[in-house]
Amino acid sequence: MGAGEDRLTLMREAAKCVPGPVKAVAKREGVDAAHLARLVAGGRVVVPSNPRHPCPPMGIGEGLRVKVNANIGTSPEHVDLEEELEKARVAVKFGADTIMDLSIGGDVDDVRRTIMKKVHVPIGTVPIYQAALLVDDVRDMGPDDMFKAIEAHAKDGVDFMTIHAGVTTTAVDLLRRQGRVMDVVSRGGAILTAWISHHGEENPLYKDFDAVLDLAEKYEFTLSLGDGMRPGCTADATDGVQLQELITLGELTERCRARGVQSMIEGPGHVPMHQIEANVVLEKAVCKGAPFYVLGPLVTDIAPGYDHIVGAIGGALAARAGADFLCYLTPAEHLSLPTVDDVKEGVIVTKIAAHAADIARGIDTDRDLCISRARKELDWDAQFAAAIDHDKARQYRDRRMPKHTAEACTMCGKLCSMRTMNKFFEKGKAGKPARSKRDRK
Amino acid sequence: MGAGEDRLTLMREAAKCVPGPVKAVAKREGVDAAHLARLVAGGRVVVPSNPRHPCPPMGIGEGLRVKVNANIGTSPEHVDLEEELEKARVAVKFGADTIMDLSIGGDVDDVRRTIMKKVHVPIGTVPIYQAALLVDDVRDMGPDDMFKAIEAHAKDGVDFMTIHAGVTTTAVDLLRRQGRVMDVVSRGGAILTAWISHHGEENPLYKDFDAVLDLAEKYEFTLSLGDGMRPGCTADATDGVQLQELITLGELTERCRARGVQSMIEGPGHVPMHQIEANVVLEKAVCKGAPFYVLGPLVTDIAPGYDHIVGAIGGALAARAGADFLCYLTPAEHLSLPTVDDVKEGVIVTKIAAHAADIARGIDTDRDLCISRARKELDWDAQFAAAIDHDKARQYRDRRMPKHTAEACTMCGKLCSMRTMNKFFEKGKAGKPARSKRDRK
Repeated sequence: MGAGEDRLTLMREAAKCVPGPVKAVAKREGVDAAHLARLVAGGRVVVPSNPRHPCPPMGIGEGLRVKVNANIGTSPEHVDLEEELEKARVAVKFGADTIMDLSIGGDVDDVRRTIMKKVHVPIGTVPIYQAALLVDDVRDMGPDDMFKAIEAHAKDGVDFMTIHAGVTTTAVDLLRRQGRVMDVVSRGGAILTAWISHHGEENPLYKDFDAVLDLAEKYEFTLSLGDGMRPGCTADATDGVQLQELITLGELTERCRARGVQSMIEGPGHVPMHQIEANVVLEKAVCKGAPFYVLGPLVTDIAPGYDHIVGAIGGALAARAGADFLCYLTPAEHLSLPTVDDVKEGVIVTKIAAHAADIARGIDTDRDLCISRARKELDWDAQFAAAIDHDKARQYRDRRMPKHTAEACTMCGKLCSMRTMNKFFEKGKAGKPARSKRDRK
Repeated sequence: MGAGEDRLTLMREAAKCVPGPVKAVAKREGVDAAHLARLVAGGRVVVPSNPRHPCPPMGIGEGLRVKVNANIGTSPEHVDLEEELEKARVAVKFGADTIMDLSIGGDVDDVRRTIMKKVHVPIGTVPIYQAALLVDDVRDMGPDDMFKAIEAHAKDGVDFMTIHAGVTTTAVDLLRRQGRVMDVVSRGGAILTAWISHHGEENPLYKDFDAVLDLAEKYEFTLSLGDGMRPGCTADATDGVQLQELITLGELTERCRARGVQSMIEGPGHVPMHQIEANVVLEKAVCKGAPFYVLGPLVTDIAPGYDHIVGAIGGALAARAGADFLCYLTPAEHLSLPTVDDVKEGVIVTKIAAHAADIARGIDTDRDLCISRARKELDWDAQFAAAIDHDKARQYRDRRMPKHTAEACTMCGKLCSMRTMNKFFEKGKAGKPARSKRDRK
């Protein structure tokens, strides 16, 4: 029996009534609260919400707006808590729905606790990193280290945690037999592959998954079942190793649901365009409609410096196909720890992808209509007000202001199509064109 | 009979043999030359190549790599020939396959002729702009002005020209009856809509389309049948007015083919994600497989400053669905005349979209494999060499170099997954894991 048997988890509560956080999410999203409660109870929507971390509830999954996560965190090569807090602030300002603290440098406990205190959106972490930091050689980690890290994060109020329970001996054996261009590119996946490979034993997070569930039930955090075997290049996409892990994640999803523990599924990674929809369909089928949280996907490998854009292309496609939650990438992906500016750029571009998928479902089209009407009227202030980044939009206009045709911009000047149409085109007068004296015919 | 009846057009020649330019394109693309000649003869591939403008032939259409166009050109608000030449140089350096000179400011003849002389990729123009510049009021343009501008551009060696022959009285009447949020947003479309609306007469480019064909046949330029009625916001996408124009373009495609004149079709514009594939299917059906040249499409309206990215999402989707040719957008779209830096950014991002669609068809995957292998080996120089923008990639690594784990980067440091796997994972040894003395179990 779970440690939290005296208290209902949010998922179990949602099966009986409409819990407060679910009601709040329904209101934010403009959906029916009772229907949303059924989706939460059925595991098709998660509301990551650790009672120890007060923040406005946020839902991820079927029928809701596509959400965006921004990763922040120190590295062993660069530790600056203030910079990470600023990244979180900027990410939330530009619309990140959640923040993951992936810190692996400096006093990671202090970093995490400070972030939990100062950031008021759901926070995610990957506790295996912390376990790995305790040892010189990742193969020396003990199973207890892994579970202790999870509990420490839960006590700090972490709302969702990546747990790489799908990296199993079966998957590692297959990887060894099958081979891959890039092997394992997930930090947690690589750690556990090294561990399994060395000890010849099963991944403790899989073997003792009930212990993970005990903690999730007790502390009410959401499991983000990690894709440690995600492809690290388009050539490795959708291979046997990836699918082997997905099968395991499907099995674990059922175990989460049986215990009333909320869970979502992490997905690739590097995936060529023609395989993205299939990946979403697969996840939704194998994991019975569990929310799908994708990293990218990156639709080509050749664009370091532009991977936020490569990921936005893949993310938009994935979200359009049914993915629920996009992890942003920054221009620094594959190259270095991102700066605050990189974080801003990454969040905005990923929000564009999420929004594009939303409006394809008819959600949140008002803002598009608003800016389009302002554009038609050549009302620049109203355009900036409706823009996703009004400062950048304004700056682009201001740096080259028109001198002769003030209402237009320097692209078209007097040939501005808005101007031409607004001046010369009379609506609602079909068949009655005015003839001008200047007509040359 | 056409003015060029004594000479075979490239399209007619391709029906009889494999013309030199077609052979050159086949070689560049790695496709069968005889098959390509049949596609050119059938109008499914175009090779825009005015004999007066020597440059390496380039093909656009079925089975070929997705191509990218970069627009440059002066505006009435900003005239700097050197800057435009630099834009062309940078665009070609980063992979633009064609350049369109859309100049409407200063001595546009001189600008065009200088570009024709200095830029060695196919050049496109929109002659109606020039006709419009001759008059104070666009409604005062005479039909002769339009044809004279076309002939002047042809004589200068322009390889392909946008001709807005689909902006007809029928389409304008429908626009007036139906209404739209943004009316007409194409510069050429707005000019012709104002003209038709004012004169109550048919668009001369449609009415006297044979005269356009005479010129195209005589000078051997490719017609890019313009989408003057393209939607200017997602709310207007795929409406009756757009389809009315497309029907006309389908009819004109047949007339081009009957005259041995190469043609392609320009497409939207602002289109929400769920309508993009349908738009490509429609164009390919109505225009009988003619190459499809899309501007974007922009999948949301709310991101001025980021429209190159919004367009890359739409462009990748369109290309994946069968569009052949992507017109880039820059961050300055909707805001101002782009700078050289904007052009670079726009070209790279659009090339990413084109390449993503290509690798989804299994074309050009070598470069992705190459960078992925380098990434696995933590061979940074090889990664930069294979990157689409090696300077930017190098700069992102260099600005935050790792101090402790030199082979990794500042994102992960000692937890670098490549490093973990390369150190600890032995391939091809399934079932024989080494047991360490340090094993705690």
